[in-house]
Amino acid sequence: MATFTAPLREMGFVLNDVLNVRQLSDIDAFNDATPDFISGLLDEAAKLIQGQIAPLNAPGDATGAQWKDGEVILPEGMAEAYKLFWESGWVGLSNPPEFNGQGLPYLVSKVVEEMLCSANVAFALYPGLTTGCFEAILANGSDAQKQTYLPKLGSGEWTGTMCITEPQAGTDLASIKTKATPQDDGSFAIEGGKIFITSGEHTMADNIIHFVLARLPDAPAGIKGLSTFVVPKYLVNDDGSLGERNAFTCSSIEHKMGIHASCTCVMSFEGAKGWMVGAPNTGIQNMFVMMNLARIMVGFQGLGQCELATQNAIAYAQERKQGTAFNGAPEIIHHPDVRRMLLQMKATTEGARVLAYETALYVDLAHHHPDAAVREEAQDWVDLNTPLVKAFCTDSAFDLGSMAVQVYGGHGYISEYGIEQIVRDSKILCLYEGTNGVQAMDLVRRKLMMHGGRLPRRFIDKVKGALADASGHEGITRPLGAAVEALADTTDWLQQSFKSDPNTGAFGCVDYQRAFALTYLGYNWLRMAQAASQHADDGFKANKLATAHFFASRMLTQVPTLLANVKAPVDALVALDAASF
Amino acid sequence: MATFTAPLREMGFVLNDVLNVRQLSDIDAFNDATPDFISGLLDEAAKLIQGQIAPLNAPGDATGAQWKDGEVILPEGMAEAYKLFWESGWVGLSNPPEFNGQGLPYLVSKVVEEMLCSANVAFALYPGLTTGCFEAILANGSDAQKQTYLPKLGSGEWTGTMCITEPQAGTDLASIKTKATPQDDGSFAIEGGKIFITSGEHTMADNIIHFVLARLPDAPAGIKGLSTFVVPKYLVNDDGSLGERNAFTCSSIEHKMGIHASCTCVMSFEGAKGWMVGAPNTGIQNMFVMMNLARIMVGFQGLGQCELATQNAIAYAQERKQGTAFNGAPEIIHHPDVRRMLLQMKATTEGARVLAYETALYVDLAHHHPDAAVREEAQDWVDLNTPLVKAFCTDSAFDLGSMAVQVYGGHGYISEYGIEQIVRDSKILCLYEGTNGVQAMDLVRRKLMMHGGRLPRRFIDKVKGALADASGHEGITRPLGAAVEALADTTDWLQQSFKSDPNTGAFGCVDYQRAFALTYLGYNWLRMAQAASQHADDGFKANKLATAHFFASRMLTQVPTLLANVKAPVDALVALDAASF
Repeated sequence: MATFTAPLREMGFVLNDVLNVRQLSDIDAFNDATPDFISGLLDEAAKLIQGQIAPLNAPGDATGAQWKDGEVILPEGMAEAYKLFWESGWVGLSNPPEFNGQGLPYLVSKVVEEMLCSANVAFALYPGLTTGCFEAILANGSDAQKQTYLPKLGSGEWTGTMCITEPQAGTDLASIKTKATPQDDGSFAIEGGKIFITSGEHTMADNIIHFVLARLPDAPAGIKGLSTFVVPKYLVNDDGSLGERNAFTCSSIEHKMGIHASCTCVMSFEGAKGWMVGAPNTGIQNMFVMMNLARIMVGFQGLGQCELATQNAIAYAQERKQGTAFNGAPEIIHHPDVRRMLLQMKATTEGARVLAYETALYVDLAHHHPDAAVREEAQDWVDLNTPLVKAFCTDSAFDLGSMAVQVYGGHGYISEYGIEQIVRDSKILCLYEGTNGVQAMDLVRRKLMMHGGRLPRRFIDKVKGALADASGHEGITRPLGAAVEALADTTDWLQQSFKSDPNTGAFGCVDYQRAFALTYLGYNWLRMAQAASQHADDGFKANKLATAHFFASRMLTQVPTLLANVKAPVDALVALDAASF
Repeated sequence: MATFTAPLREMGFVLNDVLNVRQLSDIDAFNDATPDFISGLLDEAAKLIQGQIAPLNAPGDATGAQWKDGEVILPEGMAEAYKLFWESGWVGLSNPPEFNGQGLPYLVSKVVEEMLCSANVAFALYPGLTTGCFEAILANGSDAQKQTYLPKLGSGEWTGTMCITEPQAGTDLASIKTKATPQDDGSFAIEGGKIFITSGEHTMADNIIHFVLARLPDAPAGIKGLSTFVVPKYLVNDDGSLGERNAFTCSSIEHKMGIHASCTCVMSFEGAKGWMVGAPNTGIQNMFVMMNLARIMVGFQGLGQCELATQNAIAYAQERKQGTAFNGAPEIIHHPDVRRMLLQMKATTEGARVLAYETALYVDLAHHHPDAAVREEAQDWVDLNTPLVKAFCTDSAFDLGSMAVQVYGGHGYISEYGIEQIVRDSKILCLYEGTNGVQAMDLVRRKLMMHGGRLPRRFIDKVKGALADASGHEGITRPLGAAVEALADTTDWLQQSFKSDPNTGAFGCVDYQRAFALTYLGYNWLRMAQAASQHADDGFKANKLATAHFFASRMLTQVPTLLANVKAPVDALVALDAASF
């Protein structure tokens, strides 16, 4: 069975030595969130998550959520663990205290989320979607709606969902058909079918709050005719007590490749009572408040799975004996190709951790820094990094899961070892909240173009500055310099060419996204190598420098090749008749 | 549900227009195997496989093989389909007629195997292992053993297995412990436990013949102390009738990521009666007769899964409507990134098909060509290509399965669509018959060194010759020229450096293997582009030229970067203390 030990030392290194998390406690909102406080809190989270939630991962996969007559039965132990989790305050870690949150930095909540998603990514979806629903109502809801729903969503006592997808409307939200008809009492009758609704039905919480994208009777066609509605499973009386059950059901759940303990529901709204959140026909904007943070959350899910794959593969390779390596040792970690896989896993996971944590840090700065200029710059970074975090961390989770299976050999294919579950669980991360191809289009089509193109320039300037300031570490600075030059060049080209010929730019957008992320990780590895060089522990230092060297010499070097793909001619490929494929 | 239509036109194009399969019918042994005959036979195979075997793929995955009290129950329909398959002569297609085979070229049997492995790779393992067992006894058995076992293994009436792996002995066969103690009657008492035994127990055939690797009491330690034994489930009387059940049992089966309809058995030999095949302590050599062909077979399993992923993704993308592409069309095949994925899938599958078919063609030439020099050269190609076929086709199957899920979006993650099954089924292909890392070591450590290094030189010279003869197709010849130059350079370097410093060469062996395979595919795409240019059908021609262009501009260009990895310094990586990972 895969085991999980929270990588507290690695987390502390990134927070303190690379990202200087102390800067958060200098902000009024977070004065209490000192490095020591954060460290203590992460210790506590690790105990709970390792002890109570990780053990449910394998059995939850084996049993899965079950549907019977409209009810969803979750695997044994889930309800108890969820209750323990929210009652201990972990769901609301970064929610405002007025709504039963702890008021801590978003970054801290995401570090805990990483642990949770290593331990049990299916479990993590229940608090995860709850937070998404909370954020959407917090941003757009009326005061009355906030008072009705947020205290119990904020603590996690109630759970939440996002009801977006329909069979004909996946990526294409313009074709959503669910109808919302105004009623005399100010509510709306919601009618339609939704699919792929994570946590849509269960009895783990007393109430489930659905955030539903639907269309008013007189709404314009397409994406500008959508509105958002809050639709509780049980209506909430004025005194906060629960009233009658609302008119919708979970008509079935999906059988999936993985995340079996997370229920993926087909929901039928049959004139359900809902209340509009925000203004009419602003549904897309309302939803994207939540969606952008949800994409970062999915990136952390990927990071958690990367860590799970990496730490289990290392532990197995340190113990498993097969033959004799060239150096005479029997453990497979001494075989060069096994070592190559482990270093690639480490280089990816640790580099991605800096990307993800830095993005979360910028979320905090964008919302809470006293200086408007800092907030503006931080928001630029959040906008730029969101598709990178989502796509890179999740692609890596799947790749590293597969690589961990390879390290285990035939045993990796056997369910009881718990490694193949990583491959199955992590594939969904590349698909939901916008496929990774959609992330790449977001990067190229929107993020490169916003504010006159200043977002990627911020990154390129930052890396060039770091290179100018760096002394030593030529093994990293040389390929990083080449990568960032190529990235700058291709970015200019995309910014110019995309408007006139989007087919060309879009054809290479996934390669561009990967090249961008790898360059970002190169910058992270330069910073980690610099920080590690100051480190007192020689073993830790050697480990970090060797991993940095691996990344720089074997992964960062892919950037120019990927970027050459972006600019390669596409005419013949675009012209090829769809029927003759 | 994933569907399968045999790609007969693609198969015919490779056989006739690229590889000139007519050359086989010029050989005495295969005079009847004319292109027309082969084409007719493939039509018949396609009908049977599409009609009777493909429909069992999804239900077989859902039900899986079940174990009860030592018996294995296979999913419904498997036994009937297997009976139909062997009775129609498909198991013994390339086996010698004296043992109930059809005496057709190995290549033809592998083309049928590709179809079978698209339709149902779990099913394909039953005839596949039977063929492996047949080949091992044919090469090493006594006349009496051949007469006893081969007629019914040759037709597929009985099935066979390879009993190699033990819990402590996966890649490391030297640590095999199963004992074979000589008995007075000339037989041996086999005692020990084997794991991961594909098709180890079932009732689909009247008898199961196990080919077992075990150790004589006085055998030297390690890999040179292994011998091979034939151990039938039911003893065979002198008149060919079946006698008592042998003393071994299937004590459980594994629960696996995929290939659920294939039983993976734990076998307990408790003094079972076996007979030695070949000389004492030559077990490894005896087994490698079968193993080399088994590796090519696994490559074809990968190719079949590549085709399944590709054709389903294309069909889905041609039909699924989501939003509007830049060219105004609603089907997702018009979205540039979807098109990019489909072209990558096509470029990989079609290029790998030429690699696999050419390797199988060389097996026929090596065994049957009248000219000894041709046989020698053909055997060189088989030796060189075997790890490439095994590793590249299977890595690609997993990658393309994942890409197909991505094309399907969220629906790809749902079991009923049948696409996620490709990812799960194909991962085992990267592990068994030697992991793909083991293949890379075989390539670098053995194949590069054999016969004074002439194997890779044959390839490099062949490609350079093709480039010298080529006119036009600069989009392919330019990157192919760069790739082959880099490959030649790195090959020289590996041949020289590996002996003195194997850690360095071995560290990059997987990257080298991939670079070699991509260069081979570049050569294949040049040949396909040349052949397609002569083609009368403009749609087919445009399709092939566009796909060739995609491969040359976006995949072949990875070769120099991969090869740079091979020569990158490894000292710090090799020196890193195993405990500090």
